[in-house]
Amino acid sequence: MFARPPSAAELDRHLDALQGLVDTAGLLTDPADMPRYERDWMGKFHGRALGVIRPRDTAAVARVLAYLNAHRLPVVPQAGNTGLVGGSVPDAAGAFVLSVERMTRIRAVDAVGASITLDAGVVLESAQEAARRAGLMLALDLGSKGSCRIGGNISTNAGGLKVLRYGHIREQVLGLEVVLADGTVLDGLSSLRKNNTGYDLKQMFIGAEGTLGVVTAATLKLFPAEAGRAVAMVAVDRFDDALAVLAAVRRGFPGRLNSVELIGADAVALVAGTLPGARSPFALAHTYAVLIEVGSDDADAVAERGRLEEAIGALIEAGRVADAAIAQSDAQAEGLWRLREGVPEAVAHTAPVHKYDLTFAVGDIGRFIADCDLALARVAKGLRPVYFGHVADGNVHVNVMAPPGMQASGYQALQGPIDDAIFDLVAQYRGSISAEHGIGQVKRAYLDRNRSTAEIATMRALKAMLDPNGVLNPHRLLP
Amino acid sequence: MFARPPSAAELDRHLDALQGLVDTAGLLTDPADMPRYERDWMGKFHGRALGVIRPRDTAAVARVLAYLNAHRLPVVPQAGNTGLVGGSVPDAAGAFVLSVERMTRIRAVDAVGASITLDAGVVLESAQEAARRAGLMLALDLGSKGSCRIGGNISTNAGGLKVLRYGHIREQVLGLEVVLADGTVLDGLSSLRKNNTGYDLKQMFIGAEGTLGVVTAATLKLFPAEAGRAVAMVAVDRFDDALAVLAAVRRGFPGRLNSVELIGADAVALVAGTLPGARSPFALAHTYAVLIEVGSDDADAVAERGRLEEAIGALIEAGRVADAAIAQSDAQAEGLWRLREGVPEAVAHTAPVHKYDLTFAVGDIGRFIADCDLALARVAKGLRPVYFGHVADGNVHVNVMAPPGMQASGYQALQGPIDDAIFDLVAQYRGSISAEHGIGQVKRAYLDRNRSTAEIATMRALKAMLDPNGVLNPHRLLP
Repeated sequence: MFARPPSAAELDRHLDALQGLVDTAGLLTDPADMPRYERDWMGKFHGRALGVIRPRDTAAVARVLAYLNAHRLPVVPQAGNTGLVGGSVPDAAGAFVLSVERMTRIRAVDAVGASITLDAGVVLESAQEAARRAGLMLALDLGSKGSCRIGGNISTNAGGLKVLRYGHIREQVLGLEVVLADGTVLDGLSSLRKNNTGYDLKQMFIGAEGTLGVVTAATLKLFPAEAGRAVAMVAVDRFDDALAVLAAVRRGFPGRLNSVELIGADAVALVAGTLPGARSPFALAHTYAVLIEVGSDDADAVAERGRLEEAIGALIEAGRVADAAIAQSDAQAEGLWRLREGVPEAVAHTAPVHKYDLTFAVGDIGRFIADCDLALARVAKGLRPVYFGHVADGNVHVNVMAPPGMQASGYQALQGPIDDAIFDLVAQYRGSISAEHGIGQVKRAYLDRNRSTAEIATMRALKAMLDPNGVLNPHRLLP
Repeated sequence: MFARPPSAAELDRHLDALQGLVDTAGLLTDPADMPRYERDWMGKFHGRALGVIRPRDTAAVARVLAYLNAHRLPVVPQAGNTGLVGGSVPDAAGAFVLSVERMTRIRAVDAVGASITLDAGVVLESAQEAARRAGLMLALDLGSKGSCRIGGNISTNAGGLKVLRYGHIREQVLGLEVVLADGTVLDGLSSLRKNNTGYDLKQMFIGAEGTLGVVTAATLKLFPAEAGRAVAMVAVDRFDDALAVLAAVRRGFPGRLNSVELIGADAVALVAGTLPGARSPFALAHTYAVLIEVGSDDADAVAERGRLEEAIGALIEAGRVADAAIAQSDAQAEGLWRLREGVPEAVAHTAPVHKYDLTFAVGDIGRFIADCDLALARVAKGLRPVYFGHVADGNVHVNVMAPPGMQASGYQALQGPIDDAIFDLVAQYRGSISAEHGIGQVKRAYLDRNRSTAEIATMRALKAMLDPNGVLNPHRLLP
């Protein structure tokens, strides 16, 4: 009943048939072409691609899926393959890869209605540029914008640097075109801002990691371009003080607060000590740095910076902030952001790492960090966690570096115990084991710590309804 | 297989059993109590309630649904019963009504995390007040806030006056508790801002009009209170000029534009001529009035008004705006809003009416209005349409008043031809037949003009999956 990889003889026959459904460049079978579709960019996950199907349009995707479904053949949808949880590469048993990388048309930009309609294979940065050319802005922004693609952004409900102000991509999707497992095209493309006509089917596919259908195109909201910004970094000694900073800027800059980011002292020191040109604006070390960005009109940028200075001044006077740096130029703003965005890079330069992407009630973060330090010390001596993230959303990234001198291969054995320690704590705080990254293959076994039996049963029913043969991204997301 | 009303003898037995599942006040059977549950507030739709079940908590809802489902008995979930499409009253054939009106607990307000958790039966205005007491704001605001309840707001994906800035309630729901048809409780209550752990099940129930499950509680985002506002009304002679106004304020007030509302000249004249104290700020009649509200900090309110004046001054200079009034006080702001919010009331005082709630690409609205005038003139002589709505969202309310002297009973016969004329035009423009109000019973027959065969088939599959016996709100939403 369920999809399974074909025998070698069957495979040849299927490849012939699939070649008939796409153009010449639409099917790759040369072993030399496989690696970049078979492994993730970190090199953590890899499997076997039975062939890479690269349709040029939605009709071809529909033909291919109808065929694979009829023959119960497993297929892994893939966009930019920049995920962090192994959700877009095949298993060792083998599966076809369906890549949208050749579907890169920007179908329409509507400057009046402020929307963009584009193929799933468009690279995020290209979409951002198309919006900019129309005098508008695509709100989604991610570190991987040069490689990730819209279809993957939607299938993982990407968040990124401006969730606080603009929401996840879920809130930006106006319409979606999806091909179901059996090849049915659900044409829900629409730029309408309001449309309460029956069930909002597109929601099912956003964040479903390609297990319920293949996103082939989308219409996204666009926003007025942000002409100016005011950026500051403040130092605080206690997590409660970070909360006071958050409350103050929330109150002071409603509707235009882009980011409030927390960076632990160890992370600041690591970036400053590792990345060329990076340095902390503070003379002394403090428990946390908080980065604040306000997006404002061009006309208003100087006044906005003044207001930010004033708000921070009041926090210093109240004993909440120990030190502060307000960017006086775009270069200085970039310098402050470097301390936040450079953390993963500095970690990668320093030691093997296990990464966690967690959410909590905002008020719980300080206690979680203290508890996490203790829990990790019990797992192994010398583990070096660094903490950073989108504090306004309650989102904490924990990067746990290996003890000094330990190699990646040795550190792999510690992943299980560290996962257990951290995910137990998350359950205790009723937090989330995946804020942004998704479940993929790496967190499947832990899903039941976040979701109840009834919820997982409902998820399975949804999967069975939309993909009864289990051809789409098998062994992903669901436990 | 499908739910059907019981015979009289069976009914008594079921009522006895249901009484055993709830407290004494939890079941109403006296015929004198039925009318307000059996008909909508406009008096357009009515049916027969076999009994009104009013559980006090989620566990009781679960027991009741498990019983009704086991016995294949139809049930209509009801919250404030303020809908406009007959979605929350039973059919003439009869059904139980499940009212959440006694579930009115505000379970928690988290001022630090900016969220509120509350029962489905809380009246919107009470929820707003609870948020206000915590120094925060619930973003949802509707004319019916004194009567509508959170469960109904969620089940219809309510929009309202501030969609432009804060989105529909869908974007404000952080967590949802839902009881499924078989009595299973899906406890998805959570105040986490980010949580990509498997399928986002709550999305299925938002806007599903009680046909897939019964919403019993929710956690909603809260926002910083808006301390000040700047309000203006401008007069324009062509729809293109309204678009120019929209573009200018979008650019000028990013992140703090609450509303941009369009009001046709006939609607302005009707309100000014009908409602005591209402008057147009303009000496001459112009094709459209555009109402603009910017929500700003207290500290900034005067400067904000100055910026709005400046922006409007530039539009006057450019020949886009013919006249303008900028509110200098809260009373003046209320007066301008009265011209917009008073339209339905003025219409109700004037003639029998058929109401439409449509969405278009923003740029199409002017042409739609012209086409609609022509199409209605072909349906019958003397029909009097007025147009108003949330222009920034592409949302147009069309209220079509009967020809002078025609009674409501006679006008009923014209509903079909007017529906056809308007919904045909909507299809032609690829618009939506329901921006905010939903489908209910009144638009079921027209759903296929907005949704494809594949989409409707997928909706049916979802309904069959979650409510296989068809007990929940039968004959609603789906054609």
